[in-house]
Amino acid sequence: MPREADGNSTNFYIGLTLAILSTIFIGASFVIKKKALIKLSQYGTRAGEGGYGYLKEWLWWAGFFSLGFGETFNFAAYAFAPATLVTPLGALSVLVSAVMSSYFLRERLNLHGKIGCMLSILGSTVMVIHAPAEAEVTNLNTLSHMLLEPAFITYGVIVIIISLVLIFYYGPKYGKTNILIYIAICSMIGSLSVMACKGLGLSLKQTFGGDNQLTNLLTWFLLASLVACVTVQMNYLNRALDIFNTSIVTPIYYVFFTTFVISASAILYKEWELMTPKDIIGTLSGFLTIVFGIFLLHAFKDVNFSLSSLPTFMRREEPKETHLVNGSTTSLLQDPPSEEEVVR
Amino acid sequence: MPREADGNSTNFYIGLTLAILSTIFIGASFVIKKKALIKLSQYGTRAGEGGYGYLKEWLWWAGFFSLGFGETFNFAAYAFAPATLVTPLGALSVLVSAVMSSYFLRERLNLHGKIGCMLSILGSTVMVIHAPAEAEVTNLNTLSHMLLEPAFITYGVIVIIISLVLIFYYGPKYGKTNILIYIAICSMIGSLSVMACKGLGLSLKQTFGGDNQLTNLLTWFLLASLVACVTVQMNYLNRALDIFNTSIVTPIYYVFFTTFVISASAILYKEWELMTPKDIIGTLSGFLTIVFGIFLLHAFKDVNFSLSSLPTFMRREEPKETHLVNGSTTSLLQDPPSEEEVVR
Repeated sequence: MPREADGNSTNFYIGLTLAILSTIFIGASFVIKKKALIKLSQYGTRAGEGGYGYLKEWLWWAGFFSLGFGETFNFAAYAFAPATLVTPLGALSVLVSAVMSSYFLRERLNLHGKIGCMLSILGSTVMVIHAPAEAEVTNLNTLSHMLLEPAFITYGVIVIIISLVLIFYYGPKYGKTNILIYIAICSMIGSLSVMACKGLGLSLKQTFGGDNQLTNLLTWFLLASLVACVTVQMNYLNRALDIFNTSIVTPIYYVFFTTFVISASAILYKEWELMTPKDIIGTLSGFLTIVFGIFLLHAFKDVNFSLSSLPTFMRREEPKETHLVNGSTTSLLQDPPSEEEVVR
Repeated sequence: MPREADGNSTNFYIGLTLAILSTIFIGASFVIKKKALIKLSQYGTRAGEGGYGYLKEWLWWAGFFSLGFGETFNFAAYAFAPATLVTPLGALSVLVSAVMSSYFLRERLNLHGKIGCMLSILGSTVMVIHAPAEAEVTNLNTLSHMLLEPAFITYGVIVIIISLVLIFYYGPKYGKTNILIYIAICSMIGSLSVMACKGLGLSLKQTFGGDNQLTNLLTWFLLASLVACVTVQMNYLNRALDIFNTSIVTPIYYVFFTTFVISASAILYKEWELMTPKDIIGTLSGFLTIVFGIFLLHAFKDVNFSLSSLPTFMRREEPKETHLVNGSTTSLLQDPPSEEEVVR
């Protein structure tokens, strides 16, 4: 949180609000779209089988626009608040969609899911109160100098070389067995997308403020980089999701992506110079708390735990009764999940 | 963390170090004692059956002194650092004992236990960086005025009245079925013990500094209160542990005890006046993170999870294969815990 209550601080709160709104819209969009597809499957060809009936369903369009708003707010958030804040908060969209799913799609959230959600919120809170005050970059000229600093150039070159090696050498060989290959590519290239996104946001802010930057070559370079990076990123994210289970891809991707974005942002904006040791410790603690939250939310998704399966642990019982197989754990199995939850 | 680097700040770090040392000694003491009792059970009457053979075992004495050192450091920590810091850090002793058990007693820590440990550390870290700078109380005279402030008197009276009602009315009726009754008594009376403990620490510090306080009536009043409160507290904690499972008593007791100590400390030392909203949010987030950590460490203690039981979730498999009962959860049962872990 910026230490001085100046214009920078107002920007921080605008960015924070936009980031939170974006996670709500993005999280909701998944649930709304899924609800639309379930509704449609009752009277038409399913999307997975090539049907286009969903285009006539207002609920599907609601989901589409919800995602659109969400992504727009996310883009805008990057223009106002530091990437070190906006990116980790993305975790909240997983949470919004998990909570909404349990209400609207009757997909039960197990005890681990609930604890995971709470931890993500706690970790995000800690990250927000320790977010760095962003270096004041008000125009594209300053940014162009920062982009050309040796440290950032080195970061960009290393990231691109490693990605190319992964894409052309390790990807074809190990991509289908090692989950980290494709995720590493998305995350490294993704950190460049975010930096391009922030630059473009700055350019638009300046243009809307009356100082036209559409004639500035840098604007077009940033746009081209953004399109290129997002294309690569989406391509490899889809491959990873296609080969591996979403429950495992999501948390790993979150950790890698956030780590690279924070690194890139720290290098480009020299954020560490603005952070006290306390803030750095707080940011790391908050981030790790979110990581554990996301892990709990996903890794045990298909196991049916609930608080009501715990009271069997609560009373001291005869040794025979508390035996794992006879007593407690069987209660975890007594209520099998619906087909919906299992096949995923 | 105190904002100015004065004597108060040095005290803070002395207190923090003492608090951490105390959790290490206390956590270790449980493990050492248990190891001694296991060793003894191989060639003598078990302690549970009235044997005194343990008195001849050096390992048992090592455990005894480890606990003694731990409690002394804990007492001393209260004299230097705010209770709002020292009490929550007590959670780390659970963690030290869990980690040491897995090494020295071969009691396996499951995946939840490991995540719980990490979360307790993260939460403690966040609490430490947001701990309030304690109001400078350097002599017993100042403390006596603070103890007589209406707010603290009101707190003390309310806590004692509620405890008496619980002890004489609800305890006999519901104490054996409702886990919260005895825990509430220990926690409320415990918050008074901690305040008495801090006062006594101050008195000793002053006495060792050359200003004899052993002639001060308040010292003896504090000592009497401490003995009385600790006696009540231990009595009801033992009752709770006797009736209910340790795995459930420990986390609930931790939450209640810490909450009451923080409240009492905040009221007596007016700590909120020294904390920014950021610090209050940080303290609460850190505390809740520890609570979830302790919960994970305890509530799933008897369930056999490990990271290696997860890879069954990782690959996209045929729907039939990923079915809960056929596939994933059975792997949780494939390796039943030893009798040692189950009967508790």
